[in-house]
Formats: sequence, structure tokens, C-alpha cells
Amino acid sequence: MSAAAPPPVIVLVRPQLGENIGKAARAMLNFALTDLRLVAPRDGWPNPDAGPAAAGADIVLANATVFDTLADAVADCTTIYATTVRKRGVTKPVLTPEAAAREVHASDTRSAYIFGAERSGLETDDVALAHNIVTVPINPDFGSLNLAQAVILLAYEWSKGRALAQPPEVPLDPPAPHGELEGLIDHLVRDLDANGYFFPPDRRTMTLRTLRTTLTKTGWSHNDIRMMRGIITALGRKPRTR
Amino acid sequence: MSAAAPPPVIVLVRPQLGENIGKAARAMLNFALTDLRLVAPRDGWPNPDAGPAAAGADIVLANATVFDTLADAVADCTTIYATTVRKRGVTKPVLTPEAAAREVHASDTRSAYIFGAERSGLETDDVALAHNIVTVPINPDFGSLNLAQAVILLAYEWSKGRALAQPPEVPLDPPAPHGELEGLIDHLVRDLDANGYFFPPDRRTMTLRTLRTTLTKTGWSHNDIRMMRGIITALGRKPRTR
Repeated sequence: MSAAAPPPVIVLVRPQLGENIGKAARAMLNFALTDLRLVAPRDGWPNPDAGPAAAGADIVLANATVFDTLADAVADCTTIYATTVRKRGVTKPVLTPEAAAREVHASDTRSAYIFGAERSGLETDDVALAHNIVTVPINPDFGSLNLAQAVILLAYEWSKGRALAQPPEVPLDPPAPHGELEGLIDHLVRDLDANGYFFPPDRRTMTLRTLRTTLTKTGWSHNDIRMMRGIITALGRKPRTR
Repeated sequence: MSAAAPPPVIVLVRPQLGENIGKAARAMLNFALTDLRLVAPRDGWPNPDAGPAAAGADIVLANATVFDTLADAVADCTTIYATTVRKRGVTKPVLTPEAAAREVHASDTRSAYIFGAERSGLETDDVALAHNIVTVPINPDFGSLNLAQAVILLAYEWSKGRALAQPPEVPLDPPAPHGELEGLIDHLVRDLDANGYFFPPDRRTMTLRTLRTTLTKTGWSHNDIRMMRGIITALGRKPRTR
């Protein structure tokens, strides 16, 4: 059995605004990605606008590394995924974020997701360096994902393959034993009979069957049933004078 | 063969900043969601800060509708998903965005994804109105999804199932629109109040919440609800002399 794949690194190629670098860091850490690499950030690094936008993901910014070229940034990565919504003049497999995440998890070496600059996206030469293209299937009439949104969708999709993204445990109230439901139905039918609900009498069987179906599908727990029996009793009481 | 499920509506409950409403609209339209509903937006509506942040998703803002209460906003929806990262004092099934999207696609009635205010999230009473909770499985050491990010993750996950939407095999009686359930609850509470059910008075809020949860999980159809209203009326009648 091979070791689990290391988490993918996130590479921002020529990012422009420090704010967007901060937002990308925040998006990453939400899904436990921490290896951020910057290729030739326009305004240098560190960038004072990044911290506030990271909303607490400072550890990602503090550990970010800076490279002159994309080739340097991904030198230790074996599989490189270029994220782009546009078709490029390069023939590569085009994967969904889901398919890319499956590949990353199936691998036992390091992968990289690379993202282009805010406006222009990845250059053709950047994409040429990648093994695959990752495209988020998007509204053909309105494609407007910003950098941090693209990062969060890729990070989210990757995180789904991780055991540590544990499903929240739910202490749901289990349905009551069937006898309790029968008790509720008996109680209700007794009171309804007393009040002349089943009328005309020859429809009684059919109406009872419908009522049973309605109550059976509720999935009510012991507590729900106890509450409903209290309600039946209360409804039959004489109204208080007010 | 039944028609495909309508796309879910996105409901923002008491959103604070127009900018975030705009960002949510942009997130929606990327994945072809267009029905945006606002419950009591803090700064009124329309809001001049929304447009610039929508980055072209103006059609979503222009068609957004405003409601005073969450119950009004989802009156025509049959299944309501409350998005929250926090555990609440309400016992509901907790789904991942993926599982929720599967449910939405399997239904042939309208669903709603509801989102709370930027800082505080959904109130307990908002969650009580929902059938399910949707939680994005997130880094337990750093959960910091903003409103637009939560919207985009839910919208993205929904969009993946579009082509695959399978009609349910059994033509089950679908759950009634939410407004009908509200009508049932109102009817019941009116009669219970008249009979002094809520006692002592300071437990009323808590008891109402429990009652709402019990009734919300029934999945009752239009016909079920009609029957139950008849039953409430019948139980309150004076018993026949026999």
C-alpha cells in the first residue's frame, strides 16, 4: 500500500493584487492546503495587502515561497494541472476539478495546481508546461470566476478525497419502535371517533388507511410521538375562557 | 416521465453588505442559478454596492425578490436546506453539498438553499424551518468560508448533477410547498393556544421550535396536510353524545 499522496501545491503565476493572494490563502486553508508558491508577483513579496484578506490564514502567507519562473516553482512536482476556463492552443487532456482530484489522490507523488494572473490567466507557455488542463464546467453564457474562487473550488474538490474532511456526526433522534406509532394512531382514532370525524361510516376503512400512511411516513421519534399525543389531548380540551 | 427538478433558489437571510449580495449573484450565475431571494436585507434593496460586485451578473440582481420573513421567502419551496458550519440545537439530517445536490436533482419540486448573515450565520429559528442542514466539510482548525464562497460551493456542486438528473422511479406524492406547512402550523398553534397547551408561557418558544421540527420532518404532501388540518378541526369539536 502506497503512502497517501501529499496535498497539491497551489501556484499563482504573476498574481497582481496582494489582496487576491490573501484570499487565495484563505481559500486554501479552509480545505487544509498550505503550500502556496508565487511566481513573479507583480508587486513583490511580502505584500501588505495580503494579510488582511487572508482572514487568519497567516500561516499560509508566512510559508509562501517565491520563484522567478513557473518551471522553478514546480521543480519538485510530478504532475502539473493548469487551471483555465479558456481553450488554449495546446493539446492536453482537459479534466474537471473532480477528475483532477481523483488523479491527485491516486498518485503518491506531489502535484501542482497552477493559476494565472487575475485578468489574463495563464499564458500559453505556462500551459505548455502542464500535463493536464483543469476546467471548471461553467455557465457558457456567464463565466466569471475570480482567482480565489477558482482556488477554492479546486481545493474543495481535492478535500473531498481526504479522510480528515470528516462528515459531521449527527445524533439524530431515531424513529420510535412501531408500537409507539400504533399507540398514537389508536389514541387519535379514539378521539376522532368520539368527535364524529369518520363520516360517512362506509368511508372509515379508506380514511383510516390514508391516515396511517400519513403518520407512518413521518419518521417520528419517541419524543415526537409523545409530543403529538399531548397535542391530541390538548386539542380535545375545552377552550379556556379568555 | 417527470420533468427535471427546477434549479434551487438561493435565499440570503438578513444579508448585511450590498457587496456580498453582488458577489453571491456572481457566484450563482457562474453555475446558471438565477433565482435570488433576500430576507430583510439590512440596508434595504436595491443596494448600490451590489451591482459593481456582481461583475456582470446584473440579471440576477434585477430579478431578486425581497421578503420580510424567511417563511415567506420559501413559501413555494418543498425542501429547504440550511447552510451552516455550526452545530445547532436543532436535530436535523446534516448533508454534504454533494448529498444535498443529489437530493435536489432527485426531487421534481423546488428546493431552497438558505444562507445566514455574514457574521452571525443563520439563527436557530431559521434552521428550525429547514428540512436539512448542509455543511461544507472544512478544515477543523480553520473554518472561514465567507457568504459568496459558501454560495459558490453549493452552486458548483448542484451544477455538476444537471446532466445526470434522474427522475425518481416511484411517483411519490411530493412534499407540499412550504407555505402549506406554515398554514398547518399556524392552525395548530392557534387551537393549542386557545386550549392552554403552551404552559408555562416561558417555555412557549422552545416548545414551538420542537413542534416545528417534528412537523417539518414529516415530508407531508398537500393531501396529508389537508387531512391533518381536518383532524385538528375535528379534535377541537365538542364530542358527540353517544
